[in-house]
Amino acid sequence: MRTYVNEVKAATEELIAMKGWVHRIYDVGQISFVQLRDKTGIIQLVLDKGQREGLRLETAISVKGKKAENPKVPGGIELQVQTLEVVGKPDYDVLPFPINQQEVDAHLETQLNYRTISLRAPKVRAPFKVQEEIVEAFRAFFKKNHFSEMHTPKLIASGTEGGSEMFTVNYFDRRAFLAQSPQFYKQMMVGAGFERVFEIGHAYRAELHNTWRHLNEYVSLDVEMGFIDSEADIMDMEEGFIKHLFQHIKTTCSEELHLLDIELVEPKEMPRIPLMEAQQILLDKYNKKSPVGNLDAEGEALFSQYVKETYDSDFVFITKYPISKRPVYTMPDDRLEGMTRSFDLIYKGLEITTGGQRIHDYQQLKDNMLAFGLKPEDFDFYLETFRYGMPPHGGFAIGLERITMKLLDLDNIRKATLMPRDLKRITP
Amino acid sequence: MRTYVNEVKAATEELIAMKGWVHRIYDVGQISFVQLRDKTGIIQLVLDKGQREGLRLETAISVKGKKAENPKVPGGIELQVQTLEVVGKPDYDVLPFPINQQEVDAHLETQLNYRTISLRAPKVRAPFKVQEEIVEAFRAFFKKNHFSEMHTPKLIASGTEGGSEMFTVNYFDRRAFLAQSPQFYKQMMVGAGFERVFEIGHAYRAELHNTWRHLNEYVSLDVEMGFIDSEADIMDMEEGFIKHLFQHIKTTCSEELHLLDIELVEPKEMPRIPLMEAQQILLDKYNKKSPVGNLDAEGEALFSQYVKETYDSDFVFITKYPISKRPVYTMPDDRLEGMTRSFDLIYKGLEITTGGQRIHDYQQLKDNMLAFGLKPEDFDFYLETFRYGMPPHGGFAIGLERITMKLLDLDNIRKATLMPRDLKRITP
Repeated sequence: MRTYVNEVKAATEELIAMKGWVHRIYDVGQISFVQLRDKTGIIQLVLDKGQREGLRLETAISVKGKKAENPKVPGGIELQVQTLEVVGKPDYDVLPFPINQQEVDAHLETQLNYRTISLRAPKVRAPFKVQEEIVEAFRAFFKKNHFSEMHTPKLIASGTEGGSEMFTVNYFDRRAFLAQSPQFYKQMMVGAGFERVFEIGHAYRAELHNTWRHLNEYVSLDVEMGFIDSEADIMDMEEGFIKHLFQHIKTTCSEELHLLDIELVEPKEMPRIPLMEAQQILLDKYNKKSPVGNLDAEGEALFSQYVKETYDSDFVFITKYPISKRPVYTMPDDRLEGMTRSFDLIYKGLEITTGGQRIHDYQQLKDNMLAFGLKPEDFDFYLETFRYGMPPHGGFAIGLERITMKLLDLDNIRKATLMPRDLKRITP
Repeated sequence: MRTYVNEVKAATEELIAMKGWVHRIYDVGQISFVQLRDKTGIIQLVLDKGQREGLRLETAISVKGKKAENPKVPGGIELQVQTLEVVGKPDYDVLPFPINQQEVDAHLETQLNYRTISLRAPKVRAPFKVQEEIVEAFRAFFKKNHFSEMHTPKLIASGTEGGSEMFTVNYFDRRAFLAQSPQFYKQMMVGAGFERVFEIGHAYRAELHNTWRHLNEYVSLDVEMGFIDSEADIMDMEEGFIKHLFQHIKTTCSEELHLLDIELVEPKEMPRIPLMEAQQILLDKYNKKSPVGNLDAEGEALFSQYVKETYDSDFVFITKYPISKRPVYTMPDDRLEGMTRSFDLIYKGLEITTGGQRIHDYQQLKDNMLAFGLKPEDFDFYLETFRYGMPPHGGFAIGLERITMKLLDLDNIRKATLMPRDLKRITP
């Protein structure tokens, strides 16, 4: 049985079998100290001259040895190697950049070009362990709350919002699109009897932005919930998830958080502030004007700062966006003329969620399509669902890479994306 | 707090709140018996004339009432309703087909056209609960075995097998493809230090088939494992998963299995039989000739029958496919000239898995590309990974809809797909 680095302390075998890559080599006369790196950590190996021969950085090896305490090495344990086998021989002249330093000293674009090399650096790989646990926390929380996991199509016949900013696909003799979101499908699955659904899947945006916070292909954590009373149920659910998420990450990723120098503070109650009020505060306090019916990036950042100072919260729900600025399926708010039962969630200055209650009445949805200048017949397959007793419902979506980035204070969303796709990049 | 149908037996509240759809209505003089259907089951409501008024089949309602034992109704409990609220009003002339019968009496294509309606029928929806638990079992098993969950891009610059049978995407001013599989990426992630990875994600095949077992968009359960000794490690891992899967489904889906009349028998050891031997058996026993280096659909079915009779197994690994019939990255088998360390897994007559060990040596992989008539420079981003100490590795993929279909003895893969995409269908 193979022992991983993070298991070696507890291992009881006489001879311990370990595998991984040569991370560092120090030669000291007749013996060599080699750091072995596996997916869980780094351990020092003690080799004799014969064993060390032919080893280069990043050689993949399989060793057996006895463990010994050594207070001078990280982890306090080293392995005195008895047998060593090279299982993966390198074939390079020079590494593209060193990956055994505290930081990878290469431009982000270079790191992305050599993605499988840069990811070998523990600090570059760590965000993806955290990302995996974000997904795990998401799934566990919503399953516990009676949600079903779905997989809905990404190849679709028409756009959810009319087809702008979508990638087109040549589908046999027809044109298809890549889904911007599973919005229509998750609503349909609520109506199909699943009642509460979530999906972890790719979403595609053909946006011409090339910024630190945009991707053209990303993973969307989507939630939709039937039989709600109002959009407050949705915000309660999301707030509950975020709190669970922080606990889960603290428990499961303590090493990664330490490596990335992040201290997570569990969120308190998240303020819910209507957009108009937020805009007024921005104007009064920072002399910041906002675009009609929204906050811009600067406004989000400033308002987050205000919320942090006033409520000591990194999160804030902005509520009650105007009808004209939200999609056609958004439920109007009968308590406030011209506004909707929708919200965004801003986290440390960045929007990570859009959500809200949806229209569930067939006639109201059809009328709203006409009011938006859309043809109901273009949405037949979607509208059909609403003819058979659609319950009140709503939901939200979180961008996985965005929440990873903000949680870990990364300065570019590409550092939270294994293989980013943007305006210029479609490889590796 | 809302109580679901499957929780009502244990509920202790005086007044129980339930939500769902009107599944059936029986009027008996001044009172009415209405079946309420929610995502977990069906319960009988007892209504008076006033409460019943205006209710149609599939109306979405919210009720409060007292529970009472009634040995004559399914589940043995009914709810004597005190308050009833219509929360989702239907707007149909006639239902496309009845969904409160044991079977939905409509052509499969009609059911797919009205997908959100057909899925309301418990028997039509049941396979998706099983499918969700297949995914859950997959994830749990591989996480326990040190695998990391990944999300790799589906928008790619070049085909894994040279670009045939791929959908093309208009990616800004360039042409991109939809990934046929995460093959290259999962290997790269092994090399990137994750060592063992899995992915649950969409895969796309622009195949011109339109059969009971083909989809153009499907969910692939992908696994890749580094630091293996041989392809036997991969088969061991898959066999272990399948055994775990059967236990998990029996535990979590007993109601669905009952509804679908399926008895799961936990698999024993799965025979591993070289392709040439399987072909010889087919010829000797059934006078069935096979195509060069493969089994055809009829051969798979016949050979499964042979294995069932001989080994009492629904599963069989076919091993040692010839080099010419497997992808360029497949590891040649040095024990058998011209053959590879690859396998298929056949389950009840249908291939549900392709897998094997991959080439991990940079020079060998490059030479093999040349031998296959491919240009190594077209695969630069992939080959690069192999220059830095790539460990021996291999993996496999299972089609989620295929294994769902076979597990539940469904006669068409579309019955295991929420929204199938095929040659003719791209809606709903």
